[in-house]
Amino acid sequence: LEAAKKAGKVRVPTNVVSSICDDRGEEPTYHGVTMSTLIEGDFGVGDVISLLWFKRSLPKYATRFVEMCVMLCADHGPCVSGAHNTIVTSRAGKDLVSCLVAGLLTIGPRFGGAIDDAARYFQDACDRKLDPDEFVEDMKKKGIRVPGIGHRIKSKDNRDKRVELLQRYARKFFPATRYLDYALRVEAYTLTKAANLVMNVDGCIGALFLDLLHSSSLFSAAEIEQIVKIGYLNGLFVLARSIGLIGHALDQKRLQQGLYRHPWEAVLYI
Amino acid sequence: LEAAKKAGKVRVPTNVVSSICDDRGEEPTYHGVTMSTLIEGDFGVGDVISLLWFKRSLPKYATRFVEMCVMLCADHGPCVSGAHNTIVTSRAGKDLVSCLVAGLLTIGPRFGGAIDDAARYFQDACDRKLDPDEFVEDMKKKGIRVPGIGHRIKSKDNRDKRVELLQRYARKFFPATRYLDYALRVEAYTLTKAANLVMNVDGCIGALFLDLLHSSSLFSAAEIEQIVKIGYLNGLFVLARSIGLIGHALDQKRLQQGLYRHPWEAVLYI
Amino acid sequence: LEAAKKAGKVRVPTNVVSSICDDRGEEPTYHGVTMSTLIEGDFGVGDVISLLWFKRSLPKYATRFVEMCVMLCADHGPCVSGAHNTIVTSRAGKDLVSCLVAGLLTIGPRFGGAIDDAARYFQDACDRKLDPDEFVEDMKKKGIRVPGIGHRIKSKDNRDKRVELLQRYARKFFPATRYLDYALRVEAYTLTKAANLVMNVDGCIGALFLDLLHSSSLFSAAEIEQIVKIGYLNGLFVLARSIGLIGHALDQKRLQQGLYRHPWEAVLYI
Amino acid sequence: LEAAKKAGKVRVPTNVVSSICDDRGEEPTYHGVTMSTLIEGDFGVGDVISLLWFKRSLPKYATRFVEMCVMLCADHGPCVSGAHNTIVTSRAGKDLVSCLVAGLLTIGPRFGGAIDDAARYFQDACDRKLDPDEFVEDMKKKGIRVPGIGHRIKSKDNRDKRVELLQRYARKFFPATRYLDYALRVEAYTLTKAANLVMNVDGCIGALFLDLLHSSSLFSAAEIEQIVKIGYLNGLFVLARSIGLIGHALDQKRLQQGLYRHPWEAVLYI
Ligand SMILES: CC(C)(COP(=O)(O)OP(=O)(O)OC[C@H]1O[C@@H](n2cnc3c(N)ncnc32)[C@H](O)[C@@H]1OP(=O)(O)O)[C@@H](O)C(=O)NCCC(=O)NCCS
Ligand SMILES: CC(C)(COP(=O)(O)OP(=O)(O)OC[C@H]1O[C@@H](n2cnc3c(N)ncnc32)[C@H](O)[C@@H]1OP(=O)(O)O)[C@@H](O)C(=O)NCCC(=O)NCCS
Ligand SMILES: CC(C)(COP(=O)(O)OP(=O)(O)OC[C@H]1O[C@@H](n2cnc3c(N)ncnc32)[C@H](O)[C@@H]1OP(=O)(O)O)[C@@H](O)C(=O)NCCC(=O)NCCS
Ligand SMILES: CC(C)(COP(=O)(O)OP(=O)(O)OC[C@H]1O[C@@H](n2cnc3c(N)ncnc32)[C@H](O)[C@@H]1OP(=O)(O)O)[C@@H](O)C(=O)NCCC(=O)NCCS
Repeated sequence: LEAAKKAGKVRVPTNVVSSICDDRGEEPTYHGVTMSTLIEGDFGVGDVISLLWFKRSLPKYATRFVEMCVMLCADHGPCVSGAHNTIVTSRAGKDLVSCLVAGLLTIGPRFGGAIDDAARYFQDACDRKLDPDEFVEDMKKKGIRVPGIGHRIKSKDNRDKRVELLQRYARKFFPATRYLDYALRVEAYTLTKAANLVMNVDGCIGALFLDLLHSSSLFSAAEIEQIVKIGYLNGLFVLARSIGLIGHALDQKRLQQGLYRHPWEAVLYI
Repeated sequence: LEAAKKAGKVRVPTNVVSSICDDRGEEPTYHGVTMSTLIEGDFGVGDVISLLWFKRSLPKYATRFVEMCVMLCADHGPCVSGAHNTIVTSRAGKDLVSCLVAGLLTIGPRFGGAIDDAARYFQDACDRKLDPDEFVEDMKKKGIRVPGIGHRIKSKDNRDKRVELLQRYARKFFPATRYLDYALRVEAYTLTKAANLVMNVDGCIGALFLDLLHSSSLFSAAEIEQIVKIGYLNGLFVLARSIGLIGHALDQKRLQQGLYRHPWEAVLYI
Repeated sequence: LEAAKKAGKVRVPTNVVSSICDDRGEEPTYHGVTMSTLIEGDFGVGDVISLLWFKRSLPKYATRFVEMCVMLCADHGPCVSGAHNTIVTSRAGKDLVSCLVAGLLTIGPRFGGAIDDAARYFQDACDRKLDPDEFVEDMKKKGIRVPGIGHRIKSKDNRDKRVELLQRYARKFFPATRYLDYALRVEAYTLTKAANLVMNVDGCIGALFLDLLHSSSLFSAAEIEQIVKIGYLNGLFVLARSIGLIGHALDQKRLQQGLYRHPWEAVLYI
Repeated sequence: LEAAKKAGKVRVPTNVVSSICDDRGEEPTYHGVTMSTLIEGDFGVGDVISLLWFKRSLPKYATRFVEMCVMLCADHGPCVSGAHNTIVTSRAGKDLVSCLVAGLLTIGPRFGGAIDDAARYFQDACDRKLDPDEFVEDMKKKGIRVPGIGHRIKSKDNRDKRVELLQRYARKFFPATRYLDYALRVEAYTLTKAANLVMNVDGCIGALFLDLLHSSSLFSAAEIEQIVKIGYLNGLFVLARSIGLIGHALDQKRLQQGLYRHPWEAVLYI
């Protein structure tokens, strides 16, 4: 390219490469599928996600699963880090995008962002045929918390309903649930250690996505590895929770809440 | 409250008020509807948006319309401001949330963020029974561009397919399309001024949302006014485009694109 | 340009115009001043801000004033919206940039972002020779709070030290303090209404910047108008508070604080 | 705490711990130093950074070094990722904070964010007394690029002036430059591999900060380790570049640049 450029053969060298959406023709296309096809056929939000993220059409059970994840992760109350930041920003009188963004920025290893790591570790451990107790003890030695395990509120006797609903769906429609089964064996072991070390919604989605990718026979091994490595799955949580965060931003504006100030007496100054 | 607090009657005064999602019970609820209901019934992403943003269930034609907006606005190629920023950030090796956020921050008056203003002005002009030409000339006098009108690429003879699809749907399913009809009369007038002054997708969604709110008989006049004033509708564009932005961020990582640097020769240093 | 482009005369049309910093030569320059000059001469952070924002060298008393603003606004404890969001994000385990950004996004009309509006209104009222009471009552009629007036904590008998320090400096070094004097007359009037309606630090910086711009004789009237209209001055607060926000992000990491969750009992669910 | 809380002994348990700035008294203090002291003494921006980030006063040569880093890293033209994103966002008509933030979010491993990693690796290699060639070859085996080495534009015969200025200052004022010397030996080796593998400004600041921390005798070994591990130093780049990014945002507004759209012909659609 550099040579061609120097030789004057290329007038404007392309400096961006892109592959998901083409807006140059009569009608924009998502991975080659036109808007008209999408709207006039029986397609939904899950199909758009498939096309733009995974660059292929996925079967109905898979796109519905994607939509279920979006629905279940859309919100989890005003107390979690993301909603709280959004609420504070909305109460500072800022525009909707700023409010949403301030909340999104809390998503990461400790809040909502454990799906990819859960998938990474479960896949690795399961594929290496590690016994769940070995896996957990190994992680402990390395000083890493098992991603996808643990919840601040939920526990053995107060399960996360979202996790149950996802499991039930997968057992009914997925060709196989090898990774879910593995994750449940991990949970069985961690629950012997502490009652709050349940498989959380991140862990469940992580494991089930592995099952989806592996059992759908639509992805090559190399593609799965890339998806898991790059980290597509947190994208799902991020997208889903955007619905809730926007909701919280609007809620505060509707309720005309004033500037938030954390109470002095709730701070320990050291 | 301050008094009660001082009197020791209130131990921990609440400092946050919230109304969209309750996570304290057995199961989180979206405006009172449990996760189980949502998943086990035939509900979708549009229903979750209705519950969390509008705090009510909307009829099927309305939630499908919401989902159509999300699908149609999900992406519009790599060249627009939002996608471009996300691409640059992804190529800087940043995490998915940062990439998404850098793109979202471009959404505003000139890019994607005109839906609410379109609704505001169309509603005001239509309700005041202004003739479209009066309205447009009025805006001109005030030096304000008519939001929802104009496109950098599309024009009279190269219509935006998305706008057509939305119109067709609304004519089929909406009880009334009073505001759409008004917006089209505005467009008819602006097109006499320049070929690219078409009703854009922001304008179309803005007008149709007014129709939805007014003709569904589920919202009081005061509620509609609040929705339009606060600006719920840009939320839709923001949510929709998040799908595309996440797609672009993943795309660049998949394509292993290196650090972007804008070409020197494309900059005019003054 | 378009014509030249079509005629093939321009191969790569410039699509960005920029004027503050040139990085093409041997040495990057800030508005024409080389790094070597800056470092080897007795220049400081205030000079860099002058060159990159105002595109000129400012006299020592002015760059020191700029630096004073940065120093005084650098932080204001962990309870304000910005610091709080940064703390929450840091406790979510996110990277430094994300923590900073989540805090910055709260800066706006209600938190720290009133400097430009203060300058705008004080300039307008003072130039129109409005009596302070007229001005305040006018604003009241319009339903706009006087920007630069009011504080949640400080009051008549508990003045903001930062405001005092800035005033003292200006009286000593500024050629004139016409706008400050006006702002103080406004405060005198608002204090008759409520004890917390003091001139706040935003108001003080806003007024003094007007004095700086007008009395330095380095800016044309058109330039001043543009600076006030565009809103350079919030930039100062934003830059300054970045120091504090980064400090809070690091502080939480140093203190190894875990994920923040707002206490349920501090939320009123309605 | 939980017990005390349950027993009703603690009414409002503190849920935030903070240590850098106290705003409860008459006057806010930065690590115990009042505003008045800062302004009335001969203190500057570097001192505020020392107090809020490092929680101690640093000697004059150190705070001047901090200020020099801020000055030298304040901007590097409109073409780099950060400035470009800010420019695009400003041209989308967004507020100053959004513009700044969109630029900041590109700072990371490939753009500006290599200071901490440079410090980490140089410290580790130097303390383990690795020969520079061993160190570089080791990194190569691990597939990690040496942070602080390499530049897209600068090279052996076109050195980065900023790097020279920092070095010269350090040799004059620092008690010791052990880590700088090590980094230069690393550069000597990488330059034998390619002409653009120079020590970049990130590498230089990283090495010199190690020298500052170690030779000032103000930090314990544990404190230094924590600073390097947590990553304070990118904070410096982030703060510095904020000046330039704000400058670019204002510049575009001043120049009244319209919405940016990346040229179609500069994109390779695949
Ligand atoms: C979710 C999470 C932050 C909740 O944490 P928490 O309730 O504050 O738990 P604590 O930090 O008080 O931990 C309590 C104990 O459980 C252990 N623990 C918590 N999560 C663990 C995990 N995932 N794996 C192994 N041990 C874990 C802790 O090490 C601690 O043990 P210790 O007292 O011997 O040190 C935490 O479980 C976690 O980090 N999980 C992994 C990441 C994840 O999945 N996040 C997404 C959640 S939706
Ligand atoms: C979308 C938009 C940014 C495209 O702008 P553009 O193609 O760059 O158009 P230009 O800025 O070159 O404008 C060309 C002419 O049309 C006029 N024009 C553009 N949009 C107009 C509008 N919405 N109403 C009235 N006149 C308009 C301009 O004033 C200009 O006239 P002039 O040359 O006499 O000054 C612009 O039409 C606009 O701002 N629309 C309103 C906001 C909106 O709907 N945004 C969402 C778009 S998805
Ligand atoms: C700073 C500020 C948010 C503090 O607000 P607060 O302490 O929560 O004040 P409240 O909202 O409780 O207001 C109390 C009363 O004072 C009035 N008031 C507050 N600030 C006012 C102002 N700047 N001008 C006129 N009246 C004001 C309110 O209208 C209210 O009167 P009401 O009870 O009759 O309605 C507020 O004063 C303000 O918005 N100021 C203008 C913006 C500004 O300068 N911000 C930067 C602050 S650093
Ligand atoms: C700054 C940087 C991104 C510039 O990259 P670039 O000019 O695009 O360089 P390229 O990616 O084209 O690399 C060219 C060759 O040099 C090598 N190289 C580049 N930087 C290297 C480094 N820091 N250490 C070892 N080798 C390096 C590459 O591996 C490549 O070799 P190959 O062709 O055999 O694969 C890059 O040098 C880098 O990543 N440096 C480390 C991080 C850093 O310091 N960033 C801050 C810069 S201000």
